[in-house]
Amino acid sequence: MSGELRVIPLRGLPELDEGDDLGALLVESAKNAAGLETGDIVVVAQKAVSKVEGRVRHLDQIEPSDRARELAGDDDARRIEVILQESRRIVRMRPPTLIIAETRHGYVCASAGVDQSNAKGPSTLILLPLDSDASARLLRSRIRELSGVDVGVIVSDSFGRPFRRGTTDVALGVAGLSPLLDLEGRRDSTGYELHATEIAVADEIAGAAELVMGKTEGIPAAVVRGVDVPGDGSGQDLLMPSERDLFR
Amino acid sequence: MSGELRVIPLRGLPELDEGDDLGALLVESAKNAAGLETGDIVVVAQKAVSKVEGRVRHLDQIEPSDRARELAGDDDARRIEVILQESRRIVRMRPPTLIIAETRHGYVCASAGVDQSNAKGPSTLILLPLDSDASARLLRSRIRELSGVDVGVIVSDSFGRPFRRGTTDVALGVAGLSPLLDLEGRRDSTGYELHATEIAVADEIAGAAELVMGKTEGIPAAVVRGVDVPGDGSGQDLLMPSERDLFR
Repeated sequence: MSGELRVIPLRGLPELDEGDDLGALLVESAKNAAGLETGDIVVVAQKAVSKVEGRVRHLDQIEPSDRARELAGDDDARRIEVILQESRRIVRMRPPTLIIAETRHGYVCASAGVDQSNAKGPSTLILLPLDSDASARLLRSRIRELSGVDVGVIVSDSFGRPFRRGTTDVALGVAGLSPLLDLEGRRDSTGYELHATEIAVADEIAGAAELVMGKTEGIPAAVVRGVDVPGDGSGQDLLMPSERDLFR
Repeated sequence: MSGELRVIPLRGLPELDEGDDLGALLVESAKNAAGLETGDIVVVAQKAVSKVEGRVRHLDQIEPSDRARELAGDDDARRIEVILQESRRIVRMRPPTLIIAETRHGYVCASAGVDQSNAKGPSTLILLPLDSDASARLLRSRIRELSGVDVGVIVSDSFGRPFRRGTTDVALGVAGLSPLLDLEGRRDSTGYELHATEIAVADEIAGAAELVMGKTEGIPAAVVRGVDVPGDGSGQDLLMPSERDLFR
């Protein structure tokens, strides 16, 4: 983990639709960039994955529940309804529009990951994938099938966080890499043993990819080359168990 | 922000002491790597900055207060005393040893940023810089003086966060770049206007740098090349004001 790192944007992907072969589109795009090499990590924005998986809802087909209407106030109760459907529980609320929820997958994020931007017009909502780890594994195996190359895959999304302003991209789904680097028991350069230090490398890799992806420019993926995180874990490994979490 | 990004480790720095010319050491190290170019961002680990600034305390010179003794339980009350001195307030505690504090600078982090690892033996504590933004500005101006090149500087540290396991590196001090990229009012590729989206690019850059720095290998800095974040802000810009924070 001490060489140079490169983060290469994958351009030229079309507007995505349900059923599109995202793995093939990524392999094609990589050919026009720096190709793919064993050990590369392909980071794909959650929205791209959700679109090809059909995780899209149209507002005009949603009937809000009483609870959604009550919470919505002047906001669109149909959007609140979808957020509630995606949520295991509400963690914090600030009326009228901020809902921080624990999603059914266990992520804690604004609006349970339900997003209106980048959708096909404002009447459409994009939900998180049903299982981002499965999505990552599927992309990984499709990329291997088409290119013969073993890459890691991260499905990423922009999350806010307590205490600090702005979003950073984090890893929702992970395949073919260790999302956490455990330093426990290693010694630092002065011989002092580090205690219980885990680095969330998958989140840092997702954040690095965001820097070249850009929200508004239609670059939904990037290749990160030069990170050495062998092993295999899942995005679920990054979730703090409720009982250890002091902020839930 | 759509070209390729490179993250280049800066190696060969000596063990640091109070008064060392860190700017000169970074410029020297960069000469042996990929040099420095206008627009590069130099990310420096907080510990390196704290050491040259003398932000080091020796445990045997600390007299713990009654409160520190009470909170410490079986832990070293002198360490707890230093944490209390660095804190504006305690945000969460889990006995015996986990204290999440708001530091006097406004960061929310474990042990108020007081760290025992990488110190000169286990009887030494390293504190956060008194003013990481001032540290970043000073390094930036020293680097410009020695190399003639205008770089951005980030002083970074590894912070845990609620809800998710592992630490990610974040920006404590910032000079010569915009730490937040504001997407408000921009339109995405489908013409839908993004609302109130800010990306904490300085934190993502700090995290990208961590991937090549490595806690245990004596690489306290990295150059990030290819991020376009013009402007000038401070690390304080990244702090969520208490009154807007739902988790304090």
